[in-house]
Amino acid sequence: MCFAFYIFIVVTQITRRRYPSGQRFRRVGKPDAKLIWQPDRQQSREGELEQQQKTHLPRPQQNTLRIIPLGGMEEVGRNMTVFEYGNDIVILDAGLQFPEEDMPGIDYIIPDIRYLKGKQKNIRGILLSHGHLDHIGALPHLLPRLNWPTVYGAKMTLALVRKRLEEAQLTKFFKAQEIKTDNEKLSLGNFKINFFPATHSIMDALGVVIGTPVANIIHMGDWRYDTNPVSGQPTDFSHLAKWNTRPIPSVLMFESLGSTKEGHQIPEQDIYENIKQIIENAPGRIIIATFASMVERVAWIVEVAEKLGKKVALDGFSMKTNIEVAKRFGYVKFNQGTLIDVKRIHDYPDNKVVVVCTGAQGEDRAVLMRIANSEHRQIRLKKEDTIIFSSSVIPGNERSIQRLKDNLYRQCDNVIHKEIMDVHGGGHALIEDIKFLIRQVKPQYLLPVYANHYMLCEGAKVAESIGFPSKNIFVLDNGSIAEITKNGFSVAAKKIPIEYVFVDGLGVGDIGNIVLRDRQAMAKDGMFVIIVTVDSQNGRVLNSPDIISRGFIYMRESKELLYQVREKVKQIVHQATHGQTPINQSYIKENLRDKIGQFLYNKTQRRPMVLPVVIEV
Amino acid sequence: MCFAFYIFIVVTQITRRRYPSGQRFRRVGKPDAKLIWQPDRQQSREGELEQQQKTHLPRPQQNTLRIIPLGGMEEVGRNMTVFEYGNDIVILDAGLQFPEEDMPGIDYIIPDIRYLKGKQKNIRGILLSHGHLDHIGALPHLLPRLNWPTVYGAKMTLALVRKRLEEAQLTKFFKAQEIKTDNEKLSLGNFKINFFPATHSIMDALGVVIGTPVANIIHMGDWRYDTNPVSGQPTDFSHLAKWNTRPIPSVLMFESLGSTKEGHQIPEQDIYENIKQIIENAPGRIIIATFASMVERVAWIVEVAEKLGKKVALDGFSMKTNIEVAKRFGYVKFNQGTLIDVKRIHDYPDNKVVVVCTGAQGEDRAVLMRIANSEHRQIRLKKEDTIIFSSSVIPGNERSIQRLKDNLYRQCDNVIHKEIMDVHGGGHALIEDIKFLIRQVKPQYLLPVYANHYMLCEGAKVAESIGFPSKNIFVLDNGSIAEITKNGFSVAAKKIPIEYVFVDGLGVGDIGNIVLRDRQAMAKDGMFVIIVTVDSQNGRVLNSPDIISRGFIYMRESKELLYQVREKVKQIVHQATHGQTPINQSYIKENLRDKIGQFLYNKTQRRPMVLPVVIEV
Repeated sequence: MCFAFYIFIVVTQITRRRYPSGQRFRRVGKPDAKLIWQPDRQQSREGELEQQQKTHLPRPQQNTLRIIPLGGMEEVGRNMTVFEYGNDIVILDAGLQFPEEDMPGIDYIIPDIRYLKGKQKNIRGILLSHGHLDHIGALPHLLPRLNWPTVYGAKMTLALVRKRLEEAQLTKFFKAQEIKTDNEKLSLGNFKINFFPATHSIMDALGVVIGTPVANIIHMGDWRYDTNPVSGQPTDFSHLAKWNTRPIPSVLMFESLGSTKEGHQIPEQDIYENIKQIIENAPGRIIIATFASMVERVAWIVEVAEKLGKKVALDGFSMKTNIEVAKRFGYVKFNQGTLIDVKRIHDYPDNKVVVVCTGAQGEDRAVLMRIANSEHRQIRLKKEDTIIFSSSVIPGNERSIQRLKDNLYRQCDNVIHKEIMDVHGGGHALIEDIKFLIRQVKPQYLLPVYANHYMLCEGAKVAESIGFPSKNIFVLDNGSIAEITKNGFSVAAKKIPIEYVFVDGLGVGDIGNIVLRDRQAMAKDGMFVIIVTVDSQNGRVLNSPDIISRGFIYMRESKELLYQVREKVKQIVHQATHGQTPINQSYIKENLRDKIGQFLYNKTQRRPMVLPVVIEV
Repeated sequence: MCFAFYIFIVVTQITRRRYPSGQRFRRVGKPDAKLIWQPDRQQSREGELEQQQKTHLPRPQQNTLRIIPLGGMEEVGRNMTVFEYGNDIVILDAGLQFPEEDMPGIDYIIPDIRYLKGKQKNIRGILLSHGHLDHIGALPHLLPRLNWPTVYGAKMTLALVRKRLEEAQLTKFFKAQEIKTDNEKLSLGNFKINFFPATHSIMDALGVVIGTPVANIIHMGDWRYDTNPVSGQPTDFSHLAKWNTRPIPSVLMFESLGSTKEGHQIPEQDIYENIKQIIENAPGRIIIATFASMVERVAWIVEVAEKLGKKVALDGFSMKTNIEVAKRFGYVKFNQGTLIDVKRIHDYPDNKVVVVCTGAQGEDRAVLMRIANSEHRQIRLKKEDTIIFSSSVIPGNERSIQRLKDNLYRQCDNVIHKEIMDVHGGGHALIEDIKFLIRQVKPQYLLPVYANHYMLCEGAKVAESIGFPSKNIFVLDNGSIAEITKNGFSVAAKKIPIEYVFVDGLGVGDIGNIVLRDRQAMAKDGMFVIIVTVDSQNGRVLNSPDIISRGFIYMRESKELLYQVREKVKQIVHQATHGQTPINQSYIKENLRDKIGQFLYNKTQRRPMVLPVVIEV
């Protein structure tokens, strides 16, 4: 079965369309929608890219391992790394990134996989570290383009991938192999793969060892140390030291998100004790807002609540899904009656009810925001409710969260957040954890990964601070080509070009800088459309010009300004045509754009986007 | 001299217009522009407001002090508080607030002063705590509307106000009286005013005691304790205890921005020592990015650099202005040759150059961003430059700052920020400082102020935690009416309505929710204008409909979609007119808006703003 790598589909009809392969594209998360790969701007540059690659990129040498991060080296999210040795490729993770504030309207960003074009046949598999969206979220978009290679991951991870593929109606071609979390071995072409359990915030998180004839790569996935876990043994990574087997060196790729934060990550047990105490002593209902991705925490909250004789209502689509999957696999154990529908919370006394919900980031339509705004169907806040933000602040969300807190403090006497008590610890390692890891694993080379560039640099500095030699630490970018041979480690001078691939509604890659720039411009000062009807016989303006403006000024209160603009438009058109035909449309439009733009700026010091339309009749 | 309170000016001509009073309005910060008070949406509700006030608000009782915050109780910024006793009013501060991310294009927000309409004659003065924009920035807008009451402030504060009024060409009517920072007394109607020095981050910061026959109000302005100041004595506010003189109680209004942050604010001496050491030992140039408002710090940086034999280039308009004013008044002392123009930095060896600049928040066009983007005229970064972020992160700016750091880390080996070393301490008190203050001042009542609502609540909790009685703490909102009589303290059930007054370009108050909503909508999915020309004789569509779209899809690559839309438009118009005249324009438009909107959504899952135009010829 062979699929076209880039699928050009021009939007042609409303009814569902079958593609040549028989495969249906549907949008992730919206089962009723079709996934359409727009002829994207990226593609028009593809020939160019291939040319670039042929001209500039050194061809992979024999007996060379290439490590090429396609995402996750310059941002948090969009994690995806290619490992290439001879004619074999394995890929680790295929995540999405959430958009920045200067990308209005964008749903998310996926990795740019043009490097893999034409190499699909070499892909021996996609390995997944864990089931968070920044590691698996791009799969429904990328698997079809990569000709459905086999996906390797632990039980929980694969179940979550399957959920997303189901939503996109794409399960039919999905090939997966489950990895037992402990010491599973795989042979994929030249690669020998070993997995090991990592501690994070979701069950079944894995680290991976990618063995090649020239180096053993140890990749931590997302990781932390938990020296005092809620269940099980404290984390210990000293067993990874064995992979530094001269002459085959080990390369440690470690997520560095916490490389600027001092100390050790808070043990989950501390969070557990604090939240348990709150659940035990709260005078009324308890509402705990956290990330749907903190599956382990949500799981023990349900268990704790049950122990304390309380009922738990989960509110939030992915949160419910995640716990459902975790329960199915026995990762969380509770009686059937403990979990109640949020509609039934009024059947129990307030001090027997715990609600766990999403929306701790102040997202507009999420559960906690609806509760705060009295728009939630079942929950109206009471003074004696207790609200816990068991979450950190994702950079960029500070103001939304502050406003949400303002709103909640007005309605509740007990709002508890990280600033007040340890009710959250992240799933990521901090500075002392990084030092501990390096000392335990004793690698020969270090690659800080999965964070912003400056965090990678700080990760490198942490290593240097404990005496790790600088010359053996490499900070890569997206598109960097690291090459390891038996002679050592080097980074190619040239990078492969990596661009943003935006997903917006049904479109993938069809939004480029021009569209985004227009959105930003209209957000700032609005737009101003001038429609002028011109007699094609004599170039005269017929009727009064029409004006449509949005986001610029309040039109009803600007009649005088509009009157002046209309007069000016007539004057400009008159001067531009001199009553002559044929009319030079572009000349008239250019004049209108410049002169009316300047006129509006003088009057208001705003620069709406001026769009002139000349209609000849 | 009497000015109309609300000045309705319809934009009528390009040339500068003289208003009845002979006074010219100009926009703050843009000397070449005219300040235009648009007939604002707020005004259309003014009759309503007056009615509300007459109907619902209790008239001020005799011998009652009213405290009415017009801003600063629900946000950081827009600080302005009205104190009213009988026929006397004094106002403390008149600041601006910077816009939120859901207010695209807005320059800033000023306090809503409708409560003062008709009461201008009662205003005995405006007191200013210090010269930061969130305390003085609205004055150029508000002074004319308040009939130019006398402004009281310390030397530096008044100089900065004067600068802003000069930029707005409004100094002519400015009446000011300088306050000596220590124990100046004023008698303003029924009010007896005392000032005291406060410690903040700009020179001449004052606290104020507003004495009335029923209570002494102690307002801290913006404050912190500095137990180890760079110069002068440690802060001590115990002298304020004397204002609790029974039967006249004292009311402490204390800024609570730091009420969720543990410990004491870092002494400026610590910052001083760290930065001094960096300046001394840096291998190359030092670039220090901080807020223009941190005038004290910029001042001692210049002094330290001089001591270490280095030259300082200031880059940033307000930063230069502030230091110029500080030098004029003797608040900073350095030789003429120490400060050099940034153009001259290449005349000195790199290790003799310190650049102090703005832009530490990652603002788009600010100095540090231009340096990072290699767009600065004089400065190209070198590996051995040292960059210091001597600043905190203002909520909302996290991602911009992260991206700026990424960019700087790529170019420089030494980027130092708060996460790495104490190179910044804020100008605001933290939890332990607040406790210390309350213990020193021993007030009868407490009002946390000048922060988000949740921070005010936390400020109250800090007071409770040291045994201050809850019943004597009041958390107000903007528009709350606190009333103090000899019988005690109460807050009226009704509030005066307070709305956002947006400043955008030349317009003040002319942007309302509708315009903002349109901007947000266009930012999300763009807009789609359909222009259809119809024969008024028979309702037939003439020519192919014109389509203008921005921010929706990349038009050049969507020819097929546009073709379909055009066909659909013709069809819809045909169905709507049935070839009948006269044409029902609104019916056609409604049909186009709904049906084309739905069609585009089905095709793309985006909802651009659809704007139909029907032209009859």
